[in-house]
Amino acid sequence: MAKFLHHRLDPASRLIRLICAEYGASLDMEQISPWKREADFMAISPAATLPVIIESGGETIVGPLACINFVEKNYAPTSIATLIPDDDAMQAEMWRMLEWILFKLNDEVTRYVLEEKLGRSERGDGSPQTAVLRAAKTNLHEHILYFDWILGSRAWTAGEEMSLADFALAAHISTLDYLGDMDWSKAGETRDFFARMKSRPSFRPLLADRLVSLPPSANYANLDF
Amino acid sequence: MAKFLHHRLDPASRLIRLICAEYGASLDMEQISPWKREADFMAISPAATLPVIIESGGETIVGPLACINFVEKNYAPTSIATLIPDDDAMQAEMWRMLEWILFKLNDEVTRYVLEEKLGRSERGDGSPQTAVLRAAKTNLHEHILYFDWILGSRAWTAGEEMSLADFALAAHISTLDYLGDMDWSKAGETRDFFARMKSRPSFRPLLADRLVSLPPSANYANLDF
Repeated sequence: MAKFLHHRLDPASRLIRLICAEYGASLDMEQISPWKREADFMAISPAATLPVIIESGGETIVGPLACINFVEKNYAPTSIATLIPDDDAMQAEMWRMLEWILFKLNDEVTRYVLEEKLGRSERGDGSPQTAVLRAAKTNLHEHILYFDWILGSRAWTAGEEMSLADFALAAHISTLDYLGDMDWSKAGETRDFFARMKSRPSFRPLLADRLVSLPPSANYANLDF
Repeated sequence: MAKFLHHRLDPASRLIRLICAEYGASLDMEQISPWKREADFMAISPAATLPVIIESGGETIVGPLACINFVEKNYAPTSIATLIPDDDAMQAEMWRMLEWILFKLNDEVTRYVLEEKLGRSERGDGSPQTAVLRAAKTNLHEHILYFDWILGSRAWTAGEEMSLADFALAAHISTLDYLGDMDWSKAGETRDFFARMKSRPSFRPLLADRLVSLPPSANYANLDF
């Protein structure tokens, strides 16, 4: 079984866990704190990027794009439809939304919230900066308006078929929800979408995740939030 | 012929132009200034991301990841080896480096330099902020140290075979070189690599690029720089 370096609240790690669960692939999980930038880990992932898959032959697959492509090529069963749509237009829209979620949403919201609420305490580096958290909150509000609009106009994030983009969005939302940053009163369509994603069997292990130092928000594991 | 919305100095647009030239695919090019955030363009690309391919049927393919996947699927000739290596390990390394170049290098260096030196003047928004340019320069120095180390240990950016990662890196370097931001005295292996890339036929149209408002650095088009 391949080894999987991840962090429970890292959204890219959560995305790969979800895809693997959908495809029925098991991983031997080992938690890493990328915020500590430990030498052993940096030797494998020089940008401190998670997740990392380490194959039994020793090959390392580092970062979300490499892991997505590896899992699609090696773990996707041939008997079921994969999470990459066949149709060119929908495939293009899936990559556009994946890029938005994995890089834009991450860089404007999720990674700041994680750094302030988790990274600092893991490094013993003072308390969260409220100005940064406030900026992330304002950015998140704009992103949710966009996702509400998108999900109001079609069944799934990238179109009428479920795709990798849905799992990427649900992974980020679940991290933000764990940290108490989702204002559900202001997220109509995105809330309905997340309720659907949350009740999938692949989501169960994520809802059981707990960090001892940082417990989840009250309704994190609740399917009826 | 598909329409291609791009900007001459946008590194992701340059990457797609290079891949298409390598594959012998022609594009009907139309320059866009993403910094002006014009309504017509934002309706197509809500994050103001370039490049965009508009198919004759009207399908739009938005952003570097969607364009890379579309070009690989539709324009890669079956008669030559494509720029995505077959081998799992090298493919993983290619995606790791692509992610690094398209997102990390871009977010820490290239997009700041472009915004300060070009975006501001295109919007009529004052002169470049020297503090931002200084930070980008410091970041670029760190990136070049890493690329020097990588290119000192293997023939190409992702391993012993040429791949998409080489064109992504050359695209960013050529933009920074146009803008006069490459300190060639401090880039040994990266310089040798760029000299090899620059002499490929696919690079010629890029070396002929000129912006009226912003001429290139002295040796931009010089193969012996």
